[in-house]
Amino acid sequence: MTEMFSDRLAEAILAKKSHVVVGVDPDVTLIPEELRSSAPDGNAAESVCGVYRGFLFELLGGLVDDVVAVKIQSAFFEALGWRGVRLFEETIAEARRLGYLVIADVKRGDIGNTAEAYAKAHLGGETTEGADAVTVNPYFGTDGMEPFLKRARTEGKGLFVLVKTSNPSSAELQDVVTAAGSPVYEVVGDMVARWGGKCVGRSGWSSVGAVVGGTHPDQAARLRRRLPQVPFLIPGYGAQGATAADLAGLFGPDAVGAVVNSARAILYAYRQSPRPWLEAAQAEARTMKKALWEVATRR
Amino acid sequence: MTEMFSDRLAEAILAKKSHVVVGVDPDVTLIPEELRSSAPDGNAAESVCGVYRGFLFELLGGLVDDVVAVKIQSAFFEALGWRGVRLFEETIAEARRLGYLVIADVKRGDIGNTAEAYAKAHLGGETTEGADAVTVNPYFGTDGMEPFLKRARTEGKGLFVLVKTSNPSSAELQDVVTAAGSPVYEVVGDMVARWGGKCVGRSGWSSVGAVVGGTHPDQAARLRRRLPQVPFLIPGYGAQGATAADLAGLFGPDAVGAVVNSARAILYAYRQSPRPWLEAAQAEARTMKKALWEVATRR
Repeated sequence: MTEMFSDRLAEAILAKKSHVVVGVDPDVTLIPEELRSSAPDGNAAESVCGVYRGFLFELLGGLVDDVVAVKIQSAFFEALGWRGVRLFEETIAEARRLGYLVIADVKRGDIGNTAEAYAKAHLGGETTEGADAVTVNPYFGTDGMEPFLKRARTEGKGLFVLVKTSNPSSAELQDVVTAAGSPVYEVVGDMVARWGGKCVGRSGWSSVGAVVGGTHPDQAARLRRRLPQVPFLIPGYGAQGATAADLAGLFGPDAVGAVVNSARAILYAYRQSPRPWLEAAQAEARTMKKALWEVATRR
Repeated sequence: MTEMFSDRLAEAILAKKSHVVVGVDPDVTLIPEELRSSAPDGNAAESVCGVYRGFLFELLGGLVDDVVAVKIQSAFFEALGWRGVRLFEETIAEARRLGYLVIADVKRGDIGNTAEAYAKAHLGGETTEGADAVTVNPYFGTDGMEPFLKRARTEGKGLFVLVKTSNPSSAELQDVVTAAGSPVYEVVGDMVARWGGKCVGRSGWSSVGAVVGGTHPDQAARLRRRLPQVPFLIPGYGAQGATAADLAGLFGPDAVGAVVNSARAILYAYRQSPRPWLEAAQAEARTMKKALWEVATRR
């Protein structure tokens, strides 16, 4: 039987003693100067893809010991057109080859047959390899989720559904209080728990997780109590402002119920450091790993 | 000064006397047999892309007189990997060359800098051409919308924000009643009206529109009264069940406040018709055009 995504994630966290997810958000203006010096080859997108490939593959190779999963942000690749999408696929394949769990951060969401096409595209189909997990948007409700849920139940895939996002404007819709007294994000959280009910693994965690911004510690803590089997993918650490102390309590009693994403603070750590860029990234990931492990295992 | 998207749309509707949007939802199993017979060339995705290209380019060439805009569904191209995305870009370019307004149906949504990358990818940037308009998901709130709004204000681009979707499960989140008494989709509708306040063109319509499913006529009618300057993109016609009569009242007094999408019922009309496939598609588009024009201009 295929192993559940949630169990693979729990094992990887305990094996690496790490809750760190590195967010692959390439930005050509922030990549170390020495990697940008390759001569353009006539096509601007192709040239940027070459720079990204060199940077990201070396980065991924250097973080294997300290990082449990890689979250690859589709938007920054799509912005380069189809050549960027080809590199997105290559980066997913390289990260999987290196043994990371790979989350395709695509935040897709649509009606049934379209959602099925998105699930094929990003979790694998006849002509695509796909990732281990994807981020999805809950606005369409259950029928838009079913193609993803099916793959979580039967193919060992994982989902992280947007519940409470890390950005300042997230309150506008997500915090609207419903007639029943709960904010919208809790209504969505309850939907996520229902969707994941048939994907709970040996670890006790579901393969249907929630995106919960670390920038909202009180709301995240309420969601943790409300959703005891739902693993959290927590953005907002580092560059966006959340600290390890903010996240204490979001890990379950077994210390595996949450993983924490940091992108720019790891990728471009060299900008705040005298070290060579890869060493600076490694040091930042290791510092984050230790800080999170400490709060996750403190009793 | 760049012309507003909403004004371009209004002019095109009146020039063609058409509210028809053809939804480009390619499905290799439904494409006419004679177009599927091209020999596979070793790569399955490449082969399917070749079939899609032949079908879609001929289809687009044949519908110019009766169809005002083309909505191209990204998911069905993404499901073929980067080769599919390359064809997605080629199809957008071909549709624009033929004079259609082109809506990239991507339903993206993310936080600020990521949303900026999505806007570049799908409305045009340094290395991408992009479409005239995109569909976007409102879950993140204003800061996730700003990169798209900026292009609506200054570059003549359009948005259609998900408000009330056509699928059966849309009620689960979108119909939840808030403490203030409105359902979530009306809260989102009000956000859309605010977002579009600075993009109202000469026509009196905003370049920030709403996706409102034709399968929910009563809710759509309430939204029309509530959002008098917001144009609607209406899915759900034809294969999903909405009729022209269901949509009477959603067009403004000038008959330009809504466009209606039909995908499978046009693309695969030959399956219900003795005619050759392109003639069957043209006949279906023309029938829909007349039925909508009749209800939109009835006083």
